[in-house]
Amino acid sequence: MAPAGAKRNILERLDAGEIVIGDGGFVFALEKRGYVKAGPWTPEAAAEHPEAVRQLHREFLRAGSNVMQTFTFYASDDKLENRGNAQRFTGAQINEAACDLAREVANEGDAMVAGGVSQTPSYLSCKSEAEVKGIFTRQLNVFVKKNVDFMIAEYFEHVEEAEWAVQVLKTSGKPVCASLCIGPDGDLNGVSPGDCAVRLVKAGANIVGINCHFDPMTCVKTVKMMKEGVERAGLKAHYMVQPLAYHTPDCNCQGFIDLPEFPFGLEPRILTRWDMHKYAREAFNVGIRFIGGCCGFEPYHIRAVAEELATERGYLPAASVKHGNWGAGLEMHTKPWVRARARRDYWEKLKPASGRPECPSMSTPDSWGVTKGHADLMQHKEATSLDDLHTKMIKSYSLDF
Amino acid sequence: MAPAGAKRNILERLDAGEIVIGDGGFVFALEKRGYVKAGPWTPEAAAEHPEAVRQLHREFLRAGSNVMQTFTFYASDDKLENRGNAQRFTGAQINEAACDLAREVANEGDAMVAGGVSQTPSYLSCKSEAEVKGIFTRQLNVFVKKNVDFMIAEYFEHVEEAEWAVQVLKTSGKPVCASLCIGPDGDLNGVSPGDCAVRLVKAGANIVGINCHFDPMTCVKTVKMMKEGVERAGLKAHYMVQPLAYHTPDCNCQGFIDLPEFPFGLEPRILTRWDMHKYAREAFNVGIRFIGGCCGFEPYHIRAVAEELATERGYLPAASVKHGNWGAGLEMHTKPWVRARARRDYWEKLKPASGRPECPSMSTPDSWGVTKGHADLMQHKEATSLDDLHTKMIKSYSLDF
Amino acid sequence: MAPAGAKRNILERLDAGEIVIGDGGFVFALEKRGYVKAGPWTPEAAAEHPEAVRQLHREFLRAGSNVMQTFTFYASDDKLENRGNAQRFTGAQINEAACDLAREVANEGDAMVAGGVSQTPSYLSCKSEAEVKGIFTRQLNVFVKKNVDFMIAEYFEHVEEAEWAVQVLKTSGKPVCASLCIGPDGDLNGVSPGDCAVRLVKAGANIVGINCHFDPMTCVKTVKMMKEGVERAGLKAHYMVQPLAYHTPDCNCQGFIDLPEFPFGLEPRILTRWDMHKYAREAFNVGIRFIGGCCGFEPYHIRAVAEELATERGYLPAASVKHGNWGAGLEMHTKPWVRARARRDYWEKLKPASGRPECPSMSTPDSWGVTKGHADLMQHKEATSLDDLHTKMIKSYSLDF
Amino acid sequence: MAPAGAKRNILERLDAGEIVIGDGGFVFALEKRGYVKAGPWTPEAAAEHPEAVRQLHREFLRAGSNVMQTFTFYASDDKLENRGNAQRFTGAQINEAACDLAREVANEGDAMVAGGVSQTPSYLSCKSEAEVKGIFTRQLNVFVKKNVDFMIAEYFEHVEEAEWAVQVLKTSGKPVCASLCIGPDGDLNGVSPGDCAVRLVKAGANIVGINCHFDPMTCVKTVKMMKEGVERAGLKAHYMVQPLAYHTPDCNCQGFIDLPEFPFGLEPRILTRWDMHKYAREAFNVGIRFIGGCCGFEPYHIRAVAEELATERGYLPAASVKHGNWGAGLEMHTKPWVRARARRDYWEKLKPASGRPECPSMSTPDSWGVTKGHADLMQHKEATSLDDLHTKMIKSYSLDF
Repeated sequence: MAPAGAKRNILERLDAGEIVIGDGGFVFALEKRGYVKAGPWTPEAAAEHPEAVRQLHREFLRAGSNVMQTFTFYASDDKLENRGNAQRFTGAQINEAACDLAREVANEGDAMVAGGVSQTPSYLSCKSEAEVKGIFTRQLNVFVKKNVDFMIAEYFEHVEEAEWAVQVLKTSGKPVCASLCIGPDGDLNGVSPGDCAVRLVKAGANIVGINCHFDPMTCVKTVKMMKEGVERAGLKAHYMVQPLAYHTPDCNCQGFIDLPEFPFGLEPRILTRWDMHKYAREAFNVGIRFIGGCCGFEPYHIRAVAEELATERGYLPAASVKHGNWGAGLEMHTKPWVRARARRDYWEKLKPASGRPECPSMSTPDSWGVTKGHADLMQHKEATSLDDLHTKMIKSYSLDF
Repeated sequence: MAPAGAKRNILERLDAGEIVIGDGGFVFALEKRGYVKAGPWTPEAAAEHPEAVRQLHREFLRAGSNVMQTFTFYASDDKLENRGNAQRFTGAQINEAACDLAREVANEGDAMVAGGVSQTPSYLSCKSEAEVKGIFTRQLNVFVKKNVDFMIAEYFEHVEEAEWAVQVLKTSGKPVCASLCIGPDGDLNGVSPGDCAVRLVKAGANIVGINCHFDPMTCVKTVKMMKEGVERAGLKAHYMVQPLAYHTPDCNCQGFIDLPEFPFGLEPRILTRWDMHKYAREAFNVGIRFIGGCCGFEPYHIRAVAEELATERGYLPAASVKHGNWGAGLEMHTKPWVRARARRDYWEKLKPASGRPECPSMSTPDSWGVTKGHADLMQHKEATSLDDLHTKMIKSYSLDF
Repeated sequence: MAPAGAKRNILERLDAGEIVIGDGGFVFALEKRGYVKAGPWTPEAAAEHPEAVRQLHREFLRAGSNVMQTFTFYASDDKLENRGNAQRFTGAQINEAACDLAREVANEGDAMVAGGVSQTPSYLSCKSEAEVKGIFTRQLNVFVKKNVDFMIAEYFEHVEEAEWAVQVLKTSGKPVCASLCIGPDGDLNGVSPGDCAVRLVKAGANIVGINCHFDPMTCVKTVKMMKEGVERAGLKAHYMVQPLAYHTPDCNCQGFIDLPEFPFGLEPRILTRWDMHKYAREAFNVGIRFIGGCCGFEPYHIRAVAEELATERGYLPAASVKHGNWGAGLEMHTKPWVRARARRDYWEKLKPASGRPECPSMSTPDSWGVTKGHADLMQHKEATSLDDLHTKMIKSYSLDF
Repeated sequence: MAPAGAKRNILERLDAGEIVIGDGGFVFALEKRGYVKAGPWTPEAAAEHPEAVRQLHREFLRAGSNVMQTFTFYASDDKLENRGNAQRFTGAQINEAACDLAREVANEGDAMVAGGVSQTPSYLSCKSEAEVKGIFTRQLNVFVKKNVDFMIAEYFEHVEEAEWAVQVLKTSGKPVCASLCIGPDGDLNGVSPGDCAVRLVKAGANIVGINCHFDPMTCVKTVKMMKEGVERAGLKAHYMVQPLAYHTPDCNCQGFIDLPEFPFGLEPRILTRWDMHKYAREAFNVGIRFIGGCCGFEPYHIRAVAEELATERGYLPAASVKHGNWGAGLEMHTKPWVRARARRDYWEKLKPASGRPECPSMSTPDSWGVTKGHADLMQHKEATSLDDLHTKMIKSYSLDF
């Protein structure tokens, strides 16, 4: 079932016009399975419960993923220490275990291993460029030792920190992706998506895009703005997108974290598989060729992406053996009104009800304002100027997932 | 962490006043993971992909389940044949593999293994009592050979068929549970929940209750009606409930199958963990002591049930290591407005938004009516009387999940 | 345009099988127009601003009403005094002015004048039968002097008080209607709709039914229960219904007053004219022949009722000159997608959006409970027994609109 | 109750810093009362049913309106002819009757009479500037003869036509208002609100702003953009706003006409009086001093505007005698939970439910697209170029209310 060329690297694939499908969101999926703690969100399960992480990798592989991202989100040393979850395992142990698991499952199919780094408490607490780069370097050392196939710097709210990460990852000689968790309004300092993309390409990123924080259509729109920026600048890049699997039309600039439902009441927002078809098509139409998912994506969401793009890719994912095309599995149902659902038109048009008549459809995001922020100002008495204070507060507020 | 008494059987536990926590919904969870096909819903994965089934058992065990149900839903020979999924494995192979997996994981903790049977195509196509009982007997033979701890006859829409199942399972000498998939309106022939319960207890069931088809509060309410019926009749039983993890206030008498969102657009209806706290408390208050879940229940839903009842049970489940009490994991978040969510009051009062402003909160269930049913009448020309036709149609419409 | 027979009284009309269309809700309509104060809801505008009351009568007449109810809701002496609005005008002045206005407009078309009384503070503060009947008698004296065509005792939550009212009104020798503001659960003492109806017929009412407090479909359902009760008792009566023009699926037994939106946030619940078509048809099908409206009904709502029943009645109301049948007025619109709305099917199927994405579709009614009621118990220290206390509290809570 | 200065004209009032309150939407209010036909929307009722129009004027006056707009919307000769409603009355008769009614009621209080013109079929069918101006001139002649106090050119989707109207009205020597029915995206040719405003001021308008088509907050935002444009251009003007009383967050550039609910299913979108308080405050804060309403505004909506600005204006409107401040009328309610609603905080925070659980909160506007528009292209075969075709189509689609 796998196409030829499994050994080619991601740039060769993208240059050849192939679609590369990413995986889904490990921290959220494993939180629901009982292996990640919401709040810290650290990936010690790679060392603690490898069977659980391995199984999730395998499910994404079956669903069509061509990329096994090492489960190393928030696995930088400063983060692990900061979150108090590194008692039993060192950062190196977690990062190494994550690499081994990703490689083991990647070798079961046509997948590449991507080593991932993400934003650091060091940057957000205003440490120096050298210190921040040191953090990334320690994770990179593991990735190099384990010989992952390429690198992803993802989940950055400040383009500057992402540039630093790219510069570090670039030293490996491997292809480098850079993915921000921003929306159409740009990064937290107001740098537009187009300008962010240009800076990341100039820093050495081969593939740029967006992950997390917003729903699929918002992320695709933001990548489109990045692409336009890169093209306007006369540069060249590939594009990636790995959005939430939650509808978030009501988000403000910091995304779903400010929604009152984050992180324990997001269920009504979960995308259906049919929403995923629309997302995959739209991402493809915009010219994005590395298409995956982030928080909320379960294996069946990735399978829907792979099914939507099956014609372009030339094959269905393994898990489609267990899935009828557009509801076809209902064709033999004995109730005629359930049989009537075995068609594309039905599911494309369905407006699914929430079953929650006392709940609204949109929320007002929480956010900092004069009142809310004021108490916090007191914690930054060391600020040397208003500008400095502003920088410190923005950073401090963006620290957490 | 596990209490003493792991070796005692379910009746000894319930008689001692203990709370027994069930597991969640395997067919739905494994459908999302890529191992079960919606439509047939058959459990061949037990033989095909044991690692996936084992992992799900393990997650429910970690979440607090005391019962590992064999993954044998719709694994009767007639169903497997009917659904066309038994090519690679015989019914016996699937049932045996399912028993082995449940036992393997049960032995990793304080859990019992329950062998499960459910409604059959044979009954619904009006086969004789002997034929239908023969179907159950073949599954029972495996359970006896594998020495499961007790039996569950579940997902029956007709109390008569459930009685037959109980009578068969009872021959094993093991404790027997009987669980119908009906709501407050009673079974599909209009037998009230109270009368159903009385008949099941008289047939030999030790534990009676409800599973699937309706949301938790509806199921608890129905079990309450069963309990009142049993008590009115001067009988004695224990009670169980294993509802959907979907809000279904808009269901008609056949439950969520008739909702337009079934089975591929149910996401907005998924219960949050906090909804589960309310469910667990209500079930406990009503006097139900075997409390679990069915379709839609993920491990974190079961963990929420176990956490709500932690005081009564005297311990937290293993997976609570990865879960802050009532959102406590957010206590160290850097954004003050996210920190403010680290409290019970916040999550109890939250009315989560759907993020779907063009979708309604309630649906109109599909159902058969004069028009819809008429075409189908033509398929029952062999009916010998109107009564016979009615019986045949009700049965035919209740065939499928 | 008016049919022959304008001079016949309401019983002659109903006996002949005619449909009698009532008017809409004066207190709510005039509150929006600036002539009635929400809270007291008293009708002093009949004397203060006759031009406003006359105009509203005229609009309902144009819309198809065959009944001009005197604007005497809450115009009993005890109520006017209680609400503090009788400074400028005596109760007699208000009641007389209201009769004159109703008669003046009724004579402009084919309409009858109905003198109306409603529940009294005297009853609810546990005054004697004689005292309560004295209150009704004072209003009746005006109606007799002004020679209204028939009587309506409406808006009663306690069937006992309604019986007293009927007995008083009956002394006039005119036809008497009795209309309760209860739902399917019965009156506030739990007397079922069927039993209420039987008692009212036995007290002398010729026409019985429901007004206010619930939405049209709930009111029709309740009248159906009344009709079944009367027929079971072997009695005979005509039936009337004058519901709210608000959707209230979330009401408890005391109706819309307990909804958090009452009375200043009900706008999103207002029925469309197309909802009114469904209501009129359903009321007709159930056998109700005096069909009108209460709070929330504007002239166009009554017109929709008259248009739905135009075939049965044999004519359209005067105001239909200004209304295209089922949206036909849009037929010449230049935008093709607006023209496409000029058809019945479009409006029948439309699910109108609220434009309020942060609002839910259903509310939780406020109500008295242990906590809420406790403080109030203190106000009833004079109660002589728990029963007496219960009666006093129920009455005190039902005092107000 | 009226302040000194009733005789001063609108510019003197605005120059003095006073707030001028407009009236509400006559065509929608009178459609519900049975005097205007939806579709044609013409104001022949001024001549046919003067008592109904007079009463509505009077209610707005009581509610606080300082402006009685002549009920002459769509009363241009070409429109009346086009809509086929001028059989019984000539355009001059209608316009004159409307002036007389407005004057009669204005003289009952502190109100000015404003003569109003609106967009014409002549412009939209591409007639010449001279022809279009001729249409306006005929209406202006009546206003001059009847000596209205000032002029309003309102409900224009094309700034060019509004300029022509202003130029005509300006010849009267009276103050002239120019009000477009556009949103933040500008007029139908894409001229921005700021540029529109500049052009209108240059054409001679003293007061510029927005009416109809969008909800209050959208209209206020658009007027703010107009004000910024005027100020950037170094010009000076006063500002007005008269929005819908419907929530329309889901509108596209042509406003509520393209919503599927227009015009017969808008009920769930109606603003509450408390929404109006927010609107009035926001309009005031933005610097708008002529604040009124358009379609959907009933007298109580205008009263809410006047009550919100009572402090700034120094007095309450007459109809506030029948309105408790922020629900104060409920203070004496016998149910404690209803009494609890007699406070500002309650109503400000209330999220009113729709009572319509099967309806969504947002709609997708209809609009022309390739498919929808294609059929219509055929009706413009006379177009001489693509540009010409585009102009013709845009105009034809904007013809209708």
